[in-house]
Amino acid sequence: MKLSDLTEGQIIASFQGLIPRGNFTDLGSGDDCAVVRAPGGRFVVTTDVLVAGQHFRLDWSSPEQIGARAAAQNLADIAAMGAEPTALVVSLVLPGDLELDWLTRMVAGMAGEVRPTGAGIVGGDLAVGDQLVIAVTAHGHVGERPITRAGARPGDTVAVVGTLGRSAAGLAALSRGLVAPELVGSAIPETFREAVSTYRVPKPPLRAGRLAAERGATAMMDVSDGLVLDATRLAEASGVHIDLSATALGPDRLALSAAGEALGTDPMTWVLTGGEDHALLVTFPAHVLVTDPFRAIGTVGAIGVDPSLGPRVTLEGRPITGGWDHFHQS
Amino acid sequence: MKLSDLTEGQIIASFQGLIPRGNFTDLGSGDDCAVVRAPGGRFVVTTDVLVAGQHFRLDWSSPEQIGARAAAQNLADIAAMGAEPTALVVSLVLPGDLELDWLTRMVAGMAGEVRPTGAGIVGGDLAVGDQLVIAVTAHGHVGERPITRAGARPGDTVAVVGTLGRSAAGLAALSRGLVAPELVGSAIPETFREAVSTYRVPKPPLRAGRLAAERGATAMMDVSDGLVLDATRLAEASGVHIDLSATALGPDRLALSAAGEALGTDPMTWVLTGGEDHALLVTFPAHVLVTDPFRAIGTVGAIGVDPSLGPRVTLEGRPITGGWDHFHQS
Repeated sequence: MKLSDLTEGQIIASFQGLIPRGNFTDLGSGDDCAVVRAPGGRFVVTTDVLVAGQHFRLDWSSPEQIGARAAAQNLADIAAMGAEPTALVVSLVLPGDLELDWLTRMVAGMAGEVRPTGAGIVGGDLAVGDQLVIAVTAHGHVGERPITRAGARPGDTVAVVGTLGRSAAGLAALSRGLVAPELVGSAIPETFREAVSTYRVPKPPLRAGRLAAERGATAMMDVSDGLVLDATRLAEASGVHIDLSATALGPDRLALSAAGEALGTDPMTWVLTGGEDHALLVTFPAHVLVTDPFRAIGTVGAIGVDPSLGPRVTLEGRPITGGWDHFHQS
Repeated sequence: MKLSDLTEGQIIASFQGLIPRGNFTDLGSGDDCAVVRAPGGRFVVTTDVLVAGQHFRLDWSSPEQIGARAAAQNLADIAAMGAEPTALVVSLVLPGDLELDWLTRMVAGMAGEVRPTGAGIVGGDLAVGDQLVIAVTAHGHVGERPITRAGARPGDTVAVVGTLGRSAAGLAALSRGLVAPELVGSAIPETFREAVSTYRVPKPPLRAGRLAAERGATAMMDVSDGLVLDATRLAEASGVHIDLSATALGPDRLALSAAGEALGTDPMTWVLTGGEDHALLVTFPAHVLVTDPFRAIGTVGAIGVDPSLGPRVTLEGRPITGGWDHFHQS
């Protein structure tokens, strides 16, 4: 059954029963607006748009995986403020020849990612278009102190929670044809299994965002464009310098060593510049002992008199750059 | 200058200065999330997605008009809850060959629509795609009593504020080639001037939403898919019947009589089934005198024992149907 054979009402009815109402919803979808509680008298909001062929491929990921991914990357932004997710709204642009089954499976995947957090999917909009687009806006409530990128201070410890580089390695394995796209789960060769799974659905450490706030985090963000690029953004926002430890990143590199060998790539490249695992990058005051699930990976330093004189982020004291820009790909 | 010649950072920098911060923004764009105040301890949220070729045409509307329209239709949903807009986030899918100038003008148009309301544009996301897509999510704060579609009671008066049918007439005039798309403002033949202007940028009565709530509105929604279809939705949500007065709709029909003559269309068709003027459809208790800017256009009645036996909406007691479905066009 193709979407063009159905009315908008029929399409919505096909997935209405799948979506979680959420614990903060006073009024769900179906009216002009939803009404969502904001216990702290304010809310955090983030939006991300995914385009078929650009952010995901219909032949590389299942509909459930694509839906879960769209939710996960927005939920990671909520976590990165030290907030708890409350509600999502979803706008979809759908080709008329898309199968209804694809859509309901995508919504099921999204719902499965959202439901355990207690948040609801409280509204959305559907439109017809040539290219499949998924635009998610997520909301959360935050305590007295949202954790921004701007609070890191010299002397702080740089920590990370979640994986680094796996998604980039998975994308590389699929792009180079080393993993047949129809393989899923344990059928994927072990060398690439975690990488491909993370590319398809990242597993952001969603609860760790609140934990970081409780432990006194001074700054936080999610790693979506690569560790070095995102650390640079945090360092710029905070007016500091960050030095990363290659030794501390060793376990991430080691976890991708077989994949790196198979692809002829130093896995450290993925660890430093691969985005979309949606790990959380956190800074803690020096007096806070960095313990599980956080791992110390560097230190925050002061910048000199003229910030333009040196790089914002170094690895063992040496300059390093890298990352990903969707518009301008060098 | 085309977008593909620029980095995402450069593109954002080109319009960052245009966008209003808003009166409710604790933290604006640039972090993982924005932080927006929700004075009532909850917020209303709505999302709408516009697709080039489907909801607007690049050769029929200026970039400023397209941006203003995207904002206006979301702000109308906020108004229709009796709420005041606080913040918008905007996700854009942009073809790489789009001119930067187009984008900055579109953002300027959106900003111009949002700024007078006191709301801010507090975040967004950009992606590359084949087809231009504008996905807006708008937020508002609401008093004790959000005005839903479900509160109309038998005996209530049905009222409207804003125009009906103008946008549909404007679309018809452009579609039939009776208005050259390059004409703007007073250069448009007077017969179609208001219609084409409303099609390009609807002028929802944004302040009237709060006013309706203050005057005791029992139900409210914005007319986006046509008066009959939207009145049917309100009637279904409230479990009531609505009878519209052809006499009361006379002024709307009269305002489009010249356009109707030129196009060989009874303008009542546009008034009853044309969407996208984003008027507000309101029900008031019988004891509330309906005064300016509201106009009484009908009455709310009880439904019989079996709701399936009769239509939800009638015109002078006679059945009527009509409206617009983006997916299934008969």
